[in-house]
Amino acid sequence: MAKDINLYKTCIKNSDKMSVYDEFIGYVKELYDIGKASELIGWDQETYMPPKSVEGRGYVLSTLSGVYHEKLVSKKMGEYIDELSKNNDLTDKQKANVREIKKVYDKNTKVPLKLVKEIAKTSSLGTEAWQRARKKNDFKIFQPYLEKMVGLKKELAEAIGYEDKAYDVLIDDFEPYTTVKDIDPVFSGLKKVLVPIVKKVMESETKTDNILAQDFDVDKQKKFGIEIIKNMGFDFEHGRLDSSAHPFTSGSCDDVRLTTFKEGHGFHLFAIMHEAGHGLYEQGYKPENYRTPLAEAISLGYHESQSRMWENLVGRSWFFWKYYYPKLQNVFPEQLKKYSLEDFYHAINIVKPSFIRVDADEATYNLHILLRYGMEKDLFDDKIEPKEAPTVWNQKMEEYFGIKPENDAVGVLQDVHWSQGLFGYFPTYTLGNLYSVQLFNQAKKDIPDFEEKISNGQLRNLKEWLNKNVHEYGKLYSANDLTKKITGETLNPDYFIKYLKEKFQPIYDVTL
Amino acid sequence: MAKDINLYKTCIKNSDKMSVYDEFIGYVKELYDIGKASELIGWDQETYMPPKSVEGRGYVLSTLSGVYHEKLVSKKMGEYIDELSKNNDLTDKQKANVREIKKVYDKNTKVPLKLVKEIAKTSSLGTEAWQRARKKNDFKIFQPYLEKMVGLKKELAEAIGYEDKAYDVLIDDFEPYTTVKDIDPVFSGLKKVLVPIVKKVMESETKTDNILAQDFDVDKQKKFGIEIIKNMGFDFEHGRLDSSAHPFTSGSCDDVRLTTFKEGHGFHLFAIMHEAGHGLYEQGYKPENYRTPLAEAISLGYHESQSRMWENLVGRSWFFWKYYYPKLQNVFPEQLKKYSLEDFYHAINIVKPSFIRVDADEATYNLHILLRYGMEKDLFDDKIEPKEAPTVWNQKMEEYFGIKPENDAVGVLQDVHWSQGLFGYFPTYTLGNLYSVQLFNQAKKDIPDFEEKISNGQLRNLKEWLNKNVHEYGKLYSANDLTKKITGETLNPDYFIKYLKEKFQPIYDVTL
Repeated sequence: MAKDINLYKTCIKNSDKMSVYDEFIGYVKELYDIGKASELIGWDQETYMPPKSVEGRGYVLSTLSGVYHEKLVSKKMGEYIDELSKNNDLTDKQKANVREIKKVYDKNTKVPLKLVKEIAKTSSLGTEAWQRARKKNDFKIFQPYLEKMVGLKKELAEAIGYEDKAYDVLIDDFEPYTTVKDIDPVFSGLKKVLVPIVKKVMESETKTDNILAQDFDVDKQKKFGIEIIKNMGFDFEHGRLDSSAHPFTSGSCDDVRLTTFKEGHGFHLFAIMHEAGHGLYEQGYKPENYRTPLAEAISLGYHESQSRMWENLVGRSWFFWKYYYPKLQNVFPEQLKKYSLEDFYHAINIVKPSFIRVDADEATYNLHILLRYGMEKDLFDDKIEPKEAPTVWNQKMEEYFGIKPENDAVGVLQDVHWSQGLFGYFPTYTLGNLYSVQLFNQAKKDIPDFEEKISNGQLRNLKEWLNKNVHEYGKLYSANDLTKKITGETLNPDYFIKYLKEKFQPIYDVTL
Repeated sequence: MAKDINLYKTCIKNSDKMSVYDEFIGYVKELYDIGKASELIGWDQETYMPPKSVEGRGYVLSTLSGVYHEKLVSKKMGEYIDELSKNNDLTDKQKANVREIKKVYDKNTKVPLKLVKEIAKTSSLGTEAWQRARKKNDFKIFQPYLEKMVGLKKELAEAIGYEDKAYDVLIDDFEPYTTVKDIDPVFSGLKKVLVPIVKKVMESETKTDNILAQDFDVDKQKKFGIEIIKNMGFDFEHGRLDSSAHPFTSGSCDDVRLTTFKEGHGFHLFAIMHEAGHGLYEQGYKPENYRTPLAEAISLGYHESQSRMWENLVGRSWFFWKYYYPKLQNVFPEQLKKYSLEDFYHAINIVKPSFIRVDADEATYNLHILLRYGMEKDLFDDKIEPKEAPTVWNQKMEEYFGIKPENDAVGVLQDVHWSQGLFGYFPTYTLGNLYSVQLFNQAKKDIPDFEEKISNGQLRNLKEWLNKNVHEYGKLYSANDLTKKITGETLNPDYFIKYLKEKFQPIYDVTL
């Protein structure tokens, strides 16, 4: 009898706890709805909004962001989190949802509103100053804003608190649970190998026609791109492909929207595949987890691993074009009929050091990131001062690439990130590249006849593998833990290095 | 000295009061932002949303509607309204904003949440039942839901309170400050004249080719429509024209979006002009009033007066097509080259009694509304019961049109409105028609060479007249007061009757 009573008590206890969790998750879902509303309205702004509706749109987005913030840091939310953090009866998935919301809640409650507003203001003024500085090619115009922003971001890191480094707090916004301690050994291993690889490729005598520097009709590319991404498994019943000034992916779960370039006659298929890679991640969560952290990407680096995998590891592979190149030639006979598959394959894999990160190829891209990562780390370790940025930048360019920017516009002033206070964002690009190869390597092992399938135009196996191994978990695991779970080890740059060597040795006829 | 002190006190008082008003209006603007977000998301649902994103979209809209409601009925809002309602130092515009927000606040606070939810539930179930009933042509399926809804709406009217009639409360949601006492004399005067007019037209021997019953390419019509509405003054820098299953207008102020039919080969130019009429109203508010009731339409009837004016009084006029018909013939030579302007003018003005309201012409349309208005009034006066609806409907059809519906699907079950509890909505259609002619009549007096201008394709004068006389006021005046201000008298159906007679006498060669 005593036992029965205890059992009864446990049930009551459980059901009480469960009902707090249910209330909490209902509240969280509303928070996600508001976020989703803002995101869709942001999408509209870049796609269909009439040209002169900017001001009113700004008010709407600002009000929604206020509503979101109020709901997030509310007393109610605090109570839910307090109560549920003590609860040991939650399932792992429930715990993960509580943990992730607590993380955002803590950050948003710890930082004083005054500091938040100061950062927003500095970002707005700084971006404007950065544009002027870049135009006039004069770092001095931007310098005071960079100084201010670095100072404010240090304050922010102090307010939130950290174990090891202030910079860790900033990284955490984009790559949660990943710190300098995780990144440093990986990046320094990478740097050591990358610099000589790039040097050797540069010394190679192989010359390649830049076939892509021709005119390719935007609409025809879009149509061809749709065929490819449909084949990748992008679901047009739960998504779209539109056009905008710059390609992006927006939305999640049952409504994911990609864009490609509205104008210009460049070659856009890699951008379309890249966005579709992001899109497949967002479409890949489990419907039962929609509107919770379990239907959100693990990190920006992981997100980028998906886009880069489709863009580079599939999209710039021989196997892929074995199937698609004849079709592409049919769409663009004037531009491509005279070039063989081999010509084309070489053209889409040209390695050439450039000053500009966004124009970089697979081999040199990460050097641009390592440069920025090192500088950001030193800025927040007080090892360099903002005013030294141009000098340090140029020194590193010589060290990494053997070239020196002619001016700051193609040097330290090329990226918008710092003016907006986005420190800690850059490393996610390289993390994405590294994760992409490590995961891809595992997928190749798990999927029989992988490359043959791709060269027969069968792309779905990879998509399904990614669904099962990556997407469906959402934020259940940290990036570190998930990588270990999938590949048996944490992030290891050797896979990427091996991939680069094996790919570019034959193309450039050198031993790397 | 004493005077000075008083002056000082007054200043303090004023500046205190003003600052409460400023706070209030800032709060109201956020409320409008949330409404604007919902509206844009609703627009997306009808235009670009992927086909299977409905469920998630529903959550987003429901959450936003909850946020809106919470903000509207908040304690803060109550305090603002209490304080400002006592304040006599406000300007007329400020008073109007307080008055209009108070009106919505009162309605939303007086109605118990339980009743709101019950109405929402009954609307959802009732709409589903109505669809089944219409399909199976069996009113009995819908009857219990109609009974329930009428009962709930009576409860709602009691909760809100009224001076004269419960039905007045329902009308007020769509046509504020207008009651049965205002409408009854107007509608009964109209009915007396309309029934014999329609009868005489029917007896006329004039036969007209239904030219519009041909295939007109959707895209070509859209392009032609854009030319027309640009000429009307619709501003594409603050608006768009897209496609959807049924045409509608969404948004306001600096972002107004119209749609036309996505598919189908009917003649859509009148629908495009109709929506642009709504759109011009929404684009016509003063920027200084954006995000307040002074940038909102006075009533649904007034809104409809704008759409009908452009659709019918301009769009179905001889003058308009004198300019546009040759251009239309060039776009659709196969369909139109063999028909003269006169043929076309007759075809777009065919009068023919029909069972279905939405297919009705200018002469018969209002009879459909008078029928519904009378029934709604009697339902809420307990003069008829919901179960009698089909019988009453059919009797009235015979009385008004001399025809009897074969079944309820083309009779009492044809409109969705009642299943959703939209009692009081129908009269706004006829109010719109009547207002449109009364205002148009005044515009013709005020604009020199009005008809000549229209027949030269100059449509801007009318748009500007409407901006100045109607749009720019927003909700500053009631519909009654604005009509008096513009035309020197309140709503008078004689203008409409005169218009009908003068238009259809020559077309049908009868004396009306």
